[in-house]
Amino acid sequence: MTSLASNSIEGPAYLDHAATTPMRTSAISAMNEIFATVGNAASLHGSGRAARRHVEEARESIAADVGARPSEVIFTSGGTESDNLAVKGIYWARSARDPGRRRILASAVEHHAVLDAVQWLADHEGAEVSWLPVDRDGLVAPDALRAELAEHGDSVALVTVMWANNEVGTIMPIAQLAAVAHEFGVPMHSDAIQAVGHLPVDFAASGLDAMSVAAHKFGGPHGAGALLLGREVACVPLLHGGGHERDVRSGTPDTAAVVGMAAALREAVTELSVEAERQRVLRDRLVDGVLQLIPDAVLNGPVGADRLPGNAHFTFPGCEGDSLLMLLDANGIECSTGSACTAGVARPSHVLVAMGVDRLGARGSLRFSLGHTSTDRDVDTLLAALPQVVERARAAGMAGGAVRDLESAAAVGVWGQPMRNGDS
Amino acid sequence: MTSLASNSIEGPAYLDHAATTPMRTSAISAMNEIFATVGNAASLHGSGRAARRHVEEARESIAADVGARPSEVIFTSGGTESDNLAVKGIYWARSARDPGRRRILASAVEHHAVLDAVQWLADHEGAEVSWLPVDRDGLVAPDALRAELAEHGDSVALVTVMWANNEVGTIMPIAQLAAVAHEFGVPMHSDAIQAVGHLPVDFAASGLDAMSVAAHKFGGPHGAGALLLGREVACVPLLHGGGHERDVRSGTPDTAAVVGMAAALREAVTELSVEAERQRVLRDRLVDGVLQLIPDAVLNGPVGADRLPGNAHFTFPGCEGDSLLMLLDANGIECSTGSACTAGVARPSHVLVAMGVDRLGARGSLRFSLGHTSTDRDVDTLLAALPQVVERARAAGMAGGAVRDLESAAAVGVWGQPMRNGDS
Repeated sequence: MTSLASNSIEGPAYLDHAATTPMRTSAISAMNEIFATVGNAASLHGSGRAARRHVEEARESIAADVGARPSEVIFTSGGTESDNLAVKGIYWARSARDPGRRRILASAVEHHAVLDAVQWLADHEGAEVSWLPVDRDGLVAPDALRAELAEHGDSVALVTVMWANNEVGTIMPIAQLAAVAHEFGVPMHSDAIQAVGHLPVDFAASGLDAMSVAAHKFGGPHGAGALLLGREVACVPLLHGGGHERDVRSGTPDTAAVVGMAAALREAVTELSVEAERQRVLRDRLVDGVLQLIPDAVLNGPVGADRLPGNAHFTFPGCEGDSLLMLLDANGIECSTGSACTAGVARPSHVLVAMGVDRLGARGSLRFSLGHTSTDRDVDTLLAALPQVVERARAAGMAGGAVRDLESAAAVGVWGQPMRNGDS
Repeated sequence: MTSLASNSIEGPAYLDHAATTPMRTSAISAMNEIFATVGNAASLHGSGRAARRHVEEARESIAADVGARPSEVIFTSGGTESDNLAVKGIYWARSARDPGRRRILASAVEHHAVLDAVQWLADHEGAEVSWLPVDRDGLVAPDALRAELAEHGDSVALVTVMWANNEVGTIMPIAQLAAVAHEFGVPMHSDAIQAVGHLPVDFAASGLDAMSVAAHKFGGPHGAGALLLGREVACVPLLHGGGHERDVRSGTPDTAAVVGMAAALREAVTELSVEAERQRVLRDRLVDGVLQLIPDAVLNGPVGADRLPGNAHFTFPGCEGDSLLMLLDANGIECSTGSACTAGVARPSHVLVAMGVDRLGARGSLRFSLGHTSTDRDVDTLLAALPQVVERARAAGMAGGAVRDLESAAAVGVWGQPMRNGDS
């Protein structure tokens, strides 16, 4: 247990960068410079214009880093808002112009911010939904989209498929999918929250009409994001008011947050190719180590170029994901189940179910995700602890006894509000 | 022009605290402590639980400072989101349960975040609207609300009246209005964005069902706010997803922002009575000085206890508000017109029009708003410059020549996107 002793000095082995990653010092410095000033970017006087200049410079920087025009960057409060704005806003705009277009095509493996927004439109706003199937690796095939559009093309309001999956790391063929959508004259949105800062992302080259970004996934602040939105794409606002952000998203611009977001993105994009390779090597060592130590563990998701460089995702047969998570946590290793957990009741991940993983197996799954601060020590710490942890989780069995014990010990007063997969 | 020389050293006289006020160092420190950590408050491991604890402590602190229960605090991205969530969410929930309830009663002097949300519901979601009239001081009389409810009570989904007006500082009789709404079994929301941190605000004692708060109005960060929402008040989310915030507002909690908001609010509330009196004295000196120097200037809004302590609002006959604003800005004095300005076309403020100020007079109006960093020097600087500024603005006349000259000089590359009163 030497690793444990060193943990208590160095802090936990953080293997949950897909949930959130440490802020970059460049972002913190940029924000503190703004904190020391006063000015509402919508005010007309000198302080307001200075704030406005900071916002517009951040917009230009972010646009340059994702291959977009500055006017296509709509600042939001984060990924969930960007996804909701795109899905609901484009649906409302399209169906208002053409009441026959009430169908949404969405992949079955979307994040809940898209999934639940689509479902709400179906339940409350008369939308019809086709859930696009994925293959064993979590991939939406362009032909599957084409088949659905061939059947429903005239009634489709929009297509939404994520750029990279938050659970199993699958990278979708976004440009091909967008091209198929456009064959049928249908706009396409992509939740690129796990992709931006981690993969080369070029909004213009992708052909997308809308794309969601969240700052805290690449070292920017929480509470900041953007919706990339083509100039010609009609989108009904979720937040009405002062008419900020092309009248698509009202609310006083958060100058510090967008400046921090721009600084973090610039750093992430600048180091991307080197850092992606570094993480890929580290991740492969983690995967090889896990499969060697736990021979019946199953790696979920694709192998090779179709996978986010920092993502590893396993099923450990005979284990409960929450047991594994909490036993690892007790050993100073932080990761995520990726499975949904509401009020302590474990449910299999909709992503794994869509990929055809059997529901029982899906419950014993863990995601390890690397990021810009990950080191060899993080991987070593995991590999040192994993065998005993898996053994203990298997002993606890599927009855969930260990989960309940650990929950009642750790959760008192902290887990007041159940969340559905709210961490990624 | 000695005042100008000193300005260039000390920075402008900032008289626009109602648009945004400098961040308190307590908030900046609290945020930087969080910036140095990692953790998604929805993650189940140690780092996630630590973040969650910070969020819940902030929730408890804010609840205590506004007389609410912690479970009534729904964190949002700011005032605009809180207003939109309350107005749309309660409207959707009420009208879904009882399709006969499709009417919204809203004061005619609401901020655009309420005004435009209500108007959108009318234009797109089948809502009917009664705009509640105000008196000469901008006040909604409880009897006016009662009369409207007596006529439409069974068909009303909600009432929304702001706590204090952002332009002319009128403080509404919120508890009386809420009591009237409840006589008819109708829930009431209040935009308390100008009130919290500046007036004693007690959510429980007010009887309100929902109340909007924005952190940057009392020295917290931009991009952070809350909707106070009674436990029994049904509210359809605007942002669906992970199920955060009682499932009313999804999105990764912005730990740093809510911690900064809590720190700023605690400081504002602690110093409130002393600070309100200090600002009131300073404001009265400003008002007396302006009326002495410009004898035909008119103070808009109420006098005495019914007015925000830091608010002064004047009409300067024969002047264009934008000319005054920009001439003052050129003299190192920053304030707001409070009038709406879209693409350089001045329009009279809807607040002043509702108060019965004639449309021409309404255009020559300025708001000076004080805050926690305001000093005697700010008032002195204004009073020293105002006579020449008013004279020059009058010479430019109502033709707007001075406005256009100044706009083309100052605005190039900065005012890309027109906004409606977006700064307050």
